[in-house]
Amino acid sequence: MLLPALTGLIYREKEAVAYLICAFIIALIGFLITARKPKNQEFYAKEGFTSVALSWIFLSLFGCVPFVLSGDIPHFIDAFFEMVSGFTTTGSSILTDVEALSHATLFWRSFSHWIGGMGILVFALSVLPLAGGATMHLMRAESPGPQVGKMMPKIRDTSKILYIIYTIMTLVQIAILICLKMPLFDAITITFGTAGTGGFAVLNAGLAAYSPACQYVVAVFMILFGVNFNVYFLLVRRHVRQAARCEEARWYTAIIALSTAAIFINTLHLFETAEEAFRHSLFQVGSIITTTGFATTDFNLFPALSKTILILLMFIGACAGSTGGGIKVSRIVILIKSSFNELARIIHPRTVKKVHLEGKVIEHSTMRSVNTFLVSYLGVFVISLLLISLDNFDFTTNFSAVAATINNIGPGLELVGPSKNFQNYSDLSKLILSFDMLAGRLEIFPILALLSPQTWAGTFKFKK
Amino acid sequence: MLLPALTGLIYREKEAVAYLICAFIIALIGFLITARKPKNQEFYAKEGFTSVALSWIFLSLFGCVPFVLSGDIPHFIDAFFEMVSGFTTTGSSILTDVEALSHATLFWRSFSHWIGGMGILVFALSVLPLAGGATMHLMRAESPGPQVGKMMPKIRDTSKILYIIYTIMTLVQIAILICLKMPLFDAITITFGTAGTGGFAVLNAGLAAYSPACQYVVAVFMILFGVNFNVYFLLVRRHVRQAARCEEARWYTAIIALSTAAIFINTLHLFETAEEAFRHSLFQVGSIITTTGFATTDFNLFPALSKTILILLMFIGACAGSTGGGIKVSRIVILIKSSFNELARIIHPRTVKKVHLEGKVIEHSTMRSVNTFLVSYLGVFVISLLLISLDNFDFTTNFSAVAATINNIGPGLELVGPSKNFQNYSDLSKLILSFDMLAGRLEIFPILALLSPQTWAGTFKFKK
Repeated sequence: MLLPALTGLIYREKEAVAYLICAFIIALIGFLITARKPKNQEFYAKEGFTSVALSWIFLSLFGCVPFVLSGDIPHFIDAFFEMVSGFTTTGSSILTDVEALSHATLFWRSFSHWIGGMGILVFALSVLPLAGGATMHLMRAESPGPQVGKMMPKIRDTSKILYIIYTIMTLVQIAILICLKMPLFDAITITFGTAGTGGFAVLNAGLAAYSPACQYVVAVFMILFGVNFNVYFLLVRRHVRQAARCEEARWYTAIIALSTAAIFINTLHLFETAEEAFRHSLFQVGSIITTTGFATTDFNLFPALSKTILILLMFIGACAGSTGGGIKVSRIVILIKSSFNELARIIHPRTVKKVHLEGKVIEHSTMRSVNTFLVSYLGVFVISLLLISLDNFDFTTNFSAVAATINNIGPGLELVGPSKNFQNYSDLSKLILSFDMLAGRLEIFPILALLSPQTWAGTFKFKK
Repeated sequence: MLLPALTGLIYREKEAVAYLICAFIIALIGFLITARKPKNQEFYAKEGFTSVALSWIFLSLFGCVPFVLSGDIPHFIDAFFEMVSGFTTTGSSILTDVEALSHATLFWRSFSHWIGGMGILVFALSVLPLAGGATMHLMRAESPGPQVGKMMPKIRDTSKILYIIYTIMTLVQIAILICLKMPLFDAITITFGTAGTGGFAVLNAGLAAYSPACQYVVAVFMILFGVNFNVYFLLVRRHVRQAARCEEARWYTAIIALSTAAIFINTLHLFETAEEAFRHSLFQVGSIITTTGFATTDFNLFPALSKTILILLMFIGACAGSTGGGIKVSRIVILIKSSFNELARIIHPRTVKKVHLEGKVIEHSTMRSVNTFLVSYLGVFVISLLLISLDNFDFTTNFSAVAATINNIGPGLELVGPSKNFQNYSDLSKLILSFDMLAGRLEIFPILALLSPQTWAGTFKFKK
């Protein structure tokens, strides 16, 4: 919070005081909590799941206090929604006029994307020292995707290298945007939004306010940040051939190419030039599949086919091990491959084949956990959809609102489309959608673990 | 086809001639085909799947000829859509004015529901003699639900008993409706629609045209026809306690009770009396969960929560082994139970539990095939949604159109709602939705088997 406070000071805003006060209070609380060392240092999957989930909730609760204190977002539930949306890199907003916010708050919103993109705790881990066993469980609970990369034996080193790659890519994008004459503050905040695949903008017009060249740069970087970071890791270590062979990245590229082509043809008549149609198609596809949520045009006005493609891309999401959300390309590929396999087995019982991904056989336990993920995901989706439909908006609005939050996209369709926002929903719905954002970002399991009675069994022993 | 011809003769309609001609031609073709006995009498799962899928397609192709010949539905694609909708017990219609149809055609439409409900081929099997091995594979491919009941060793006997139960229930409903002063023709056709959980009505106003008492009777019978027929089988054999213990039927009842209560409270303000609100809630819930598709009121005008509940019920569907469609209650229960189990295992790795249904352990192969079903189902859903969105209707219309056809319901929401129909869709979309109806009725696998290149490998040997 010292960074937004600094930003506030540079722009001589009184809101900076709110950030300074909060930073001080949080530092104090942190000091008090860590003063007492727990006796039991055991740390298993259960503790990993629950501490990650609790950390994200508490960080969002503390993080939104300056919004309220500074008066930028006076209503607490709104501020909480906005903060969760920031940390989970969703980018859904309840604000109708972002230009009225202080620079400090704008910076904090965008910065939360950048921190959230790689994982708040991985961020902490790469900076702070922590006991060995705990890190693995924490990282497993926080990093997106079905398998945790066992790229390097030491998690701390891995997360440091990942953060270095992440930071360098961020700096490169800021530099390019400045060269293209984007104002410094905009270049920094937009890049934070791109890197974390978040989607908060600093102008009401969103990304439509910048030059076509800037839009292309952001589109390309969004897509780059949606690639599995293993690929960059391999590139850094000069395993170029291995990096090029990454199956997930290939599927990801193929999906982007196909969707862009389809939307380009489908929307050609809406724009004056083919270049414009191509740019908007590429940008929207990149923005939605990486779950960033920036928009250069109001895709709510697109024809039905394009809108349906965008809704489907919301669910597919980016690669595992990237900063993007959604179900993840590798999960989709595993599901489709294993289903084709099973279908072949049902129809021709004598066929025996194994499912491969990235050249490796996918084990039963992975497939089972992917299937469980899908069902839990659908369960959370359905229950949220039912609860928010109490607000009595139309089905497309509700469906796309849940899709946009659980997949950490940002804008949906109709009343929550790119030119609208989530302000109309009731407080209850905002809390449910905040829950969906957290569930989506932490990939369901940690958040469900929090709700499981088994998790808490034995914690409050005096109750027995 | 002799029955609709007879109906036509009773009402002295010239359309009866069309049905007589078709009946004669089909009899001739059938005679010619069966004249030559095939040398290779082997019959495995593959042959079961493909012959069931092909039979349904050819029966629909032949079945719709009288619609065209009689001039009732002159356009062939429309007639095919209507016939598929009939046999698959969907009840989606492209007709704007059913009252303009001849009685022969009305009878044929409703009768197709009654035949389709228990399965065209099971119908044939219970009447005609057939080689032993073939029947099992045919029945497995045609009957709805994850597991085929091994209630009796001899399939032919089982299907005969099931048909007897089915016929008796049908006759009871017709008798009650006649006692309630419904006209004979209406009582028969509406009962066919109820028994097969189809949904074709004979009046433009649908079921709203009849008295509240009739609506209650139809509602109760719809729900009864959505129960697993194993339960009735057990009741007939006086295993009352075993029948009452049927877990799927209990879930089914619980879902109906909960949904009816929720919709009742949610729509109370729309109706004049509480009785009316209750009747419409019960009727619509029964109609949608059993995938019948009758409507006593335009549920497109319901509040968002009620509409969302109805959309969800579309997917859940009736019990396995009933005449209803959808994913089936038992599949949903298996998916949810196994996910809870896996979740517990992921969070607390030391837990080991097995998934039970109906007191039996669910085997891995069953779970895998249920998971494969879910993914294939979602795949067919998504591809259909993309293709029909080319017609550029809104997302809710397209989404509910695919949901209503793949789950064999009938009406959807918005432009395909209870007071509208499927006429606006293009021919391509009508064919895709016909495909979805068949895929839904035959539970995906047989229809996908038809599309698999492996199925046809070696069939056309001269090509090699």
